[in-house]
Amino acid sequence: MRNVFSFVGASGSGKTTFIEKLITLLSGKGYKVGAIKHDAHRFEIDKPGKDSYRFKAAGAVVSLISSHEKHALVRSNDEYEPSIDEIILKYMGGVDLVITEGYKKISIPKIEVLRRENGNLPVAFGSEYLIGVITDYDYQEIVRFLKEQNCKDPSSIPCFALDDVEKVAEFILSK
Amino acid sequence: MRNVFSFVGASGSGKTTFIEKLITLLSGKGYKVGAIKHDAHRFEIDKPGKDSYRFKAAGAVVSLISSHEKHALVRSNDEYEPSIDEIILKYMGGVDLVITEGYKKISIPKIEVLRRENGNLPVAFGSEYLIGVITDYDYQEIVRFLKEQNCKDPSSIPCFALDDVEKVAEFILSK
Repeated sequence: MRNVFSFVGASGSGKTTFIEKLITLLSGKGYKVGAIKHDAHRFEIDKPGKDSYRFKAAGAVVSLISSHEKHALVRSNDEYEPSIDEIILKYMGGVDLVITEGYKKISIPKIEVLRRENGNLPVAFGSEYLIGVITDYDYQEIVRFLKEQNCKDPSSIPCFALDDVEKVAEFILSK
Repeated sequence: MRNVFSFVGASGSGKTTFIEKLITLLSGKGYKVGAIKHDAHRFEIDKPGKDSYRFKAAGAVVSLISSHEKHALVRSNDEYEPSIDEIILKYMGGVDLVITEGYKKISIPKIEVLRRENGNLPVAFGSEYLIGVITDYDYQEIVRFLKEQNCKDPSSIPCFALDDVEKVAEFILSK
């Protein structure tokens, strides 16, 4: 699967909101989008008291609920957390493109969301996988940041405004 | 996958509570249990406001969240609801046995939970896949019910008490 794009950035940069809008736009165009969120914490999903929740809480390795319109599951990892490649192979069949959030160290194209008022440093500007930046910094500032991180060719990294969902969608679809 | 057991019965019979106890017992013995619940209604899973929920609501075909300890996903069905065979093949790899609830018409071994005070008729007594009954009816009454449903060999269908989780676990493991 080559159509995988990872949105990265410091906490508070607005990654999730941007991805949400991007998915809305791409889905509206008829693309089947898969979304993968990496969570560094212990997430809780499902609702206490629901049957699927009760089965998982009782110790089931995997608890799945299926209905006419959709299905959902919660599965405990075995010895290790599955890699992004394993997750894509196992769960992302039949989708046109995959958007990930929160995977910082994977070897797939990255788009960094960098928000000035957030005050955080970029997280992927030194990565050879960086393919774009979504930001409210001036372009010259971004070029300077990239050079500081030893980016070989800053001019090859396009910049998009924080609300430029349409252009980012076009950029992704052109890849 | 042959180790699949379907718990059936009218609403209010106590299927879910029994399965919950059974999973607790089997998991405690070290078995890897997979649970599949069929929901005839539109279930809601995940929590509004959570990132994975937002991505699904934005139109993603599949939204997955992964952490160190577990992963979870919600996926819209394509043209049709996946069959129990497809679900098992795709999602139940690596488990020792699968327990299902709510699938009434599938061709896998069924155990019916029948509770007297519930007042409902049995749902699977006419099925060739019925392999056991969990009930507070007297055995002779169960035999009569089975005969009424043209069960060829009522004596081949063991009966268990409503709280007899240990014996049902043994029965399942012997299969």
